[in-house]
Amino acid sequence: MSALGTAPTEEPRAEPPRPPLASAVVAMVGAGQLARMTHQAAIALGVELRVLAGRDDEPAVRAGASYRLGSPDRLDDLRALAAGADVVTFDHEGIDPEHLAALEAEGVPLAPGAAAKLLAQDKLHARHRFAQLGYPVPPFAHARTQDAVVAFAAEHGWPLIGKAPRGGYDGRGVFVLDDAAAAARVLALQPDGLVLEPHLPIVRELAIVVARSATGERVAYPVAETVQRDAMCREVLVPAEVEAPLAARVRDLALRLADDAQVTGLLAVELFQTPDALLVNEVALRPHNSGHYTIEGCATSQFEQHLRAVLGWPLGLATQLAPAVATVNVVGPADGSDPTTRLRRALAVPGAHVHLYGKTPAPGRKLGHVTVLGDELEAARRSAREAASLLEGDG
Amino acid sequence: MSALGTAPTEEPRAEPPRPPLASAVVAMVGAGQLARMTHQAAIALGVELRVLAGRDDEPAVRAGASYRLGSPDRLDDLRALAAGADVVTFDHEGIDPEHLAALEAEGVPLAPGAAAKLLAQDKLHARHRFAQLGYPVPPFAHARTQDAVVAFAAEHGWPLIGKAPRGGYDGRGVFVLDDAAAAARVLALQPDGLVLEPHLPIVRELAIVVARSATGERVAYPVAETVQRDAMCREVLVPAEVEAPLAARVRDLALRLADDAQVTGLLAVELFQTPDALLVNEVALRPHNSGHYTIEGCATSQFEQHLRAVLGWPLGLATQLAPAVATVNVVGPADGSDPTTRLRRALAVPGAHVHLYGKTPAPGRKLGHVTVLGDELEAARRSAREAASLLEGDG
Repeated sequence: MSALGTAPTEEPRAEPPRPPLASAVVAMVGAGQLARMTHQAAIALGVELRVLAGRDDEPAVRAGASYRLGSPDRLDDLRALAAGADVVTFDHEGIDPEHLAALEAEGVPLAPGAAAKLLAQDKLHARHRFAQLGYPVPPFAHARTQDAVVAFAAEHGWPLIGKAPRGGYDGRGVFVLDDAAAAARVLALQPDGLVLEPHLPIVRELAIVVARSATGERVAYPVAETVQRDAMCREVLVPAEVEAPLAARVRDLALRLADDAQVTGLLAVELFQTPDALLVNEVALRPHNSGHYTIEGCATSQFEQHLRAVLGWPLGLATQLAPAVATVNVVGPADGSDPTTRLRRALAVPGAHVHLYGKTPAPGRKLGHVTVLGDELEAARRSAREAASLLEGDG
Repeated sequence: MSALGTAPTEEPRAEPPRPPLASAVVAMVGAGQLARMTHQAAIALGVELRVLAGRDDEPAVRAGASYRLGSPDRLDDLRALAAGADVVTFDHEGIDPEHLAALEAEGVPLAPGAAAKLLAQDKLHARHRFAQLGYPVPPFAHARTQDAVVAFAAEHGWPLIGKAPRGGYDGRGVFVLDDAAAAARVLALQPDGLVLEPHLPIVRELAIVVARSATGERVAYPVAETVQRDAMCREVLVPAEVEAPLAARVRDLALRLADDAQVTGLLAVELFQTPDALLVNEVALRPHNSGHYTIEGCATSQFEQHLRAVLGWPLGLATQLAPAVATVNVVGPADGSDPTTRLRRALAVPGAHVHLYGKTPAPGRKLGHVTVLGDELEAARRSAREAASLLEGDG
């Protein structure tokens, strides 16, 4: 297979030698913690994971994934990453959608494809598309001017939530707009304007990971409750304490969306539960923070599942292995200290599964997570919080 | 810490730079599948695993462990591996005990220490030591001559089992001696003679993995039944179907032995159950084939446990996560073909956790394993066998 065979303006290039004994070569754009944990899963399957890294000390490179140095902003770097790989996938959203379209036009096998991936890259596009497909979404509007914000507020009241259409993550790119003046200040720094939504009366936030294979096979993981702080996911509690019919609706919705959007690989759907509705907030088409609990908590981790799905291999069981599973993120403390230095204390918490990402510490940066399995959700959450707190230096 | 500070004949050397952000540096002599799976576990803990590899395509190197090329037969290569590491451990037995003693005398922190490791390296030494400590062992003798074999047979009858004192594994170095002539043929090729034992009426073979930390903390995994074929472990069934008091005896024996032998790290004990006795066959002081089931089957995998133990960190829970766990090895088929090419079919077996080692295929070589969790042992075993057979090309 030549990923470049149909590129009319490219010289034919030598493909890098295929590693002997590898069951497949998966190229992943990005080398962060999601690529790192994907590499762990790739080892067992004999899959060679090749990542595109900006530096040779990124988490996946430090874990031993093979890598090419380069930038997702440069089409040639993406082409070089793809050469000789069975499939190209992603550990983040920050790739120019036009580059993805160009690669696809050249015959590079992307999983997910460019059109599907755009649902995770552009919040405005996603809201329109979900609404068009008949999925429940929050009321929304696109605003480039203060007047447009004020008009939306007239209908829904202050405060509003404004989101940068592209590029936001972990709270970056999400703004609470208390009044017209605040809106003006934020808009001045947002060249693409803001996607507006009302400040919804959220009962809880839910998330679900489903996988859809290149063959069309699908599987759904349990429904999780996510707990945000500073607009960053801090805790994941599984199963979410919702009525069975609601959980079934979430599962059906996510599986249907995976089909409608022709997803290949993982689809993580984040939803708002309000007193009278279940609304699709946003999606990710890659392994997702809300699915880290699957490493120990489910029969097949989301990382192995993603590899199976993008390669068109049979999917694994998504069965939950304990009645309750809680994951708590480890976030860089304000003093900039490294949780790694406190690992020993965290390992003393019975049942704590600690994952460190090998990232340079910075305040507010996700540096790891802890998962605990148990019979009862509050106890598992307590233990996971305890270990995470010890790592963060609060213990 | 300078591992070389006390070596009188060595120039002081610059230590390799310590990787930033690593929670610890563990050096492992060997780069096979045990080192490969240890590396997978090391990633989550932020531990830098540095292996001593003979070639840069060995399983752990292919999985991305950092490595030094060298031989365990060269003391300088072992010294270079150890430089700057928090601790040195092993994925096999094939290191000259005198080298280990020399390293220890130089202040290199070995886990396990040289004296303990010898129990796994020298079967004759181990039998003597176990007997001396009061552990039940099979009747044994050391024979260098045909006459000595005949004398042992006069007491115990033919056939006998003869084992090379050092260097055997996976059936190599184990011989069935049917008569004096066979004994003479085998002895001619065994410069160190043979450890003899009777052909015992074995009801089943049992194995247990326990961990003992550098701090003295200990934990025992469940008792497993191992099924051998051609003197190679082929299946591991957990829990072994033995009465609770017998399981307790096995557990107590292994924990006591870990203390008596001052083990640091894992101790795997293989036992023979005969109609009227429980006998210690041999031990390994490293992750062991009989403990691969712990990756999915227990709260803490043997690989993570070994890292915790050799680093003196708190040990993890060894709780079994499902009522039944079966592991079946994937062995290179006679036609020399690569199981990797048949991975997709094996992944279609529900619940099959496939581990491929990235090794060059050869008939009879262990190339991977499959673990299945379930409610009932025979069903789990059937599924694991099915997936392993598909990988071996028999499906």
